[in-house]
Amino acid sequence: MEHSVRVRRLMQDLKEPLLVSSIVNIRYLTGFSGSNAFLYATPDGCTFVTDGRYEEVAGALVDDLAATELKIYKAGLYDRLVEVFDGAPAVQLEAAHLTWQAHQEIAARFDGRLEATVGVVEAYRLRKDSDEIAALRRAAAAGDHAFSIVESLAHRAETEADLGELLVAAMAAEGGERAGWPPIVAVGGNASRPHHRSGSDAMAAGLLLLDYGCVVEGYHSDMTRTIWLDGEVDSEAERVHAAVLESNEAGIAAVRPGIPAGDVDTACRQVLAASGYEEYFLHSAGHGVGLEIHEGPSVRKGSNEILEPGQVLTVEPGVYLPGRIGVRIEDMVLVTEDGGEVLTTSSKEMRST
Amino acid sequence: MEHSVRVRRLMQDLKEPLLVSSIVNIRYLTGFSGSNAFLYATPDGCTFVTDGRYEEVAGALVDDLAATELKIYKAGLYDRLVEVFDGAPAVQLEAAHLTWQAHQEIAARFDGRLEATVGVVEAYRLRKDSDEIAALRRAAAAGDHAFSIVESLAHRAETEADLGELLVAAMAAEGGERAGWPPIVAVGGNASRPHHRSGSDAMAAGLLLLDYGCVVEGYHSDMTRTIWLDGEVDSEAERVHAAVLESNEAGIAAVRPGIPAGDVDTACRQVLAASGYEEYFLHSAGHGVGLEIHEGPSVRKGSNEILEPGQVLTVEPGVYLPGRIGVRIEDMVLVTEDGGEVLTTSSKEMRST
Repeated sequence: MEHSVRVRRLMQDLKEPLLVSSIVNIRYLTGFSGSNAFLYATPDGCTFVTDGRYEEVAGALVDDLAATELKIYKAGLYDRLVEVFDGAPAVQLEAAHLTWQAHQEIAARFDGRLEATVGVVEAYRLRKDSDEIAALRRAAAAGDHAFSIVESLAHRAETEADLGELLVAAMAAEGGERAGWPPIVAVGGNASRPHHRSGSDAMAAGLLLLDYGCVVEGYHSDMTRTIWLDGEVDSEAERVHAAVLESNEAGIAAVRPGIPAGDVDTACRQVLAASGYEEYFLHSAGHGVGLEIHEGPSVRKGSNEILEPGQVLTVEPGVYLPGRIGVRIEDMVLVTEDGGEVLTTSSKEMRST
Repeated sequence: MEHSVRVRRLMQDLKEPLLVSSIVNIRYLTGFSGSNAFLYATPDGCTFVTDGRYEEVAGALVDDLAATELKIYKAGLYDRLVEVFDGAPAVQLEAAHLTWQAHQEIAARFDGRLEATVGVVEAYRLRKDSDEIAALRRAAAAGDHAFSIVESLAHRAETEADLGELLVAAMAAEGGERAGWPPIVAVGGNASRPHHRSGSDAMAAGLLLLDYGCVVEGYHSDMTRTIWLDGEVDSEAERVHAAVLESNEAGIAAVRPGIPAGDVDTACRQVLAASGYEEYFLHSAGHGVGLEIHEGPSVRKGSNEILEPGQVLTVEPGVYLPGRIGVRIEDMVLVTEDGGEVLTTSSKEMRST
């Protein structure tokens, strides 16, 4: 969808002016990928506010947007914002994306009402359009590429951190603009800590958990695989892996439009309950993914957010036996008209064949 | 300085309880390097609040702190925070590090007064202690190392982005835990844009601007060099480079305790005025650097913040002739008892000899 169409849709839906201060929401609406901007949207028009560093890029971008003016400021941000409000009786602020200090500074200068809103632009971001899905597919494919050569990468890496760097380089070679976060590479018992920070631990035969992703045009991929790297397989690790894989597949099979997102968590959880591992499943089954690595919908127990076509979520059950065994398997799933399409297509087997 | 000493000093200085919500301030006070925590500090004790992911690491850390309790929450963050306030008549909040939404959620649950404060913990962070200076030295040294091999790196890189990756890898080999930001690598006319985003432009003979840094134990390095890579030197580029280098050296020579930070900016600016380039110097002369890449003191025109021993700042004049020539030379300088010590020791010559 053209950014101009996104801006126009927001303007049409607004009853009162909205100051968009989340830089991610601004990127969604306008395509701006810098670090400082505000978009003031009213039913009749918009003003894009940024500083002199971005004058050239913002000028080109605003030319392509519907009914939008550009305002470059050098100093006195809050004075400039209130000038842009131009005597409106009320302005909505993104309460989750504005500091209390910024609210106070604006309130001290503005005679109208300031209203707290949460999630106005995020609601549009839930359903991805074809351009967004294309970017998410490319990000997922870069992750899959890295996994396809993981055995050769693992044998070149001396430490967890080394392997993380090699994964990032492999994604970059397939179009990943940057890693979404420092990859989680966990060998042996380290895998039993869901947010292990990879470090100087040496690569070793045995269990290897990899949780990583990259960014393409601002859109994130996110995947986890747990494999057995060399040596004889431990039978308990094999049982845990089989249970988590079954749980991951049950979660994916549950994805379809019209159901509460919490049902995906329930589907994952039931499998682990049946195999006796539920108490070692320490987090929720997934999350939405897009311009942010964690965004809506919430895929946790009891989430009543209804899945809709175009949403993209992760399904990532895990089982963590403290200090001994950790297995997590995570895919990205696109909600389609009648089910779910898995975007991360790498093998989920514990051992390569 | 032990983290315990930092916490104790804050407690002693507080007149009313303070909820520290900046994750950087929390890292400074406690050493915690995770992504979610709050520190509630009162004159009599502290409570460290975080979620279940960090139970193990936070437990070990809190054991080492002065008069500090640990509270792990699973849900209902704001209810838990107000429980921790325990009927205090007033609590100070970090207004610049808390969303308006969080303020509203706390206000709805808390009967006492909420007071906005700005910069309480940041004031302690201005003067670095010996541990912090050691980390900054190591980060600067990793940047210097990368520069020492930049010619060989540049000849292996096909594009600006390639060279950026090689700089990051070179810093990692010398202890840089991660890049502070994607390096700015700008060839030819690209160097004339102060915040050029490095991309697929091919490496070429001529002007090459490199602005990059890394992180060691949370502390940032930051340096810029502009060199002439291969080929015959353009005489105007040479004149601009000489003026910027003289400006950089004048700024460094101005650094000493007791002067307003703005005097450093003035020293840089005067040299460029004398050479006729002042109008092409588009930003301020520098900034403090530490746990954040930009922190206090402000090193801009008119800044009245007084320099003190232990502060670390950048001195980074630049001249940008649109589309043609860009030169910036940036060093990190430690304010000592009687002057300044440059932490980034790489050659600043335009051509290697």
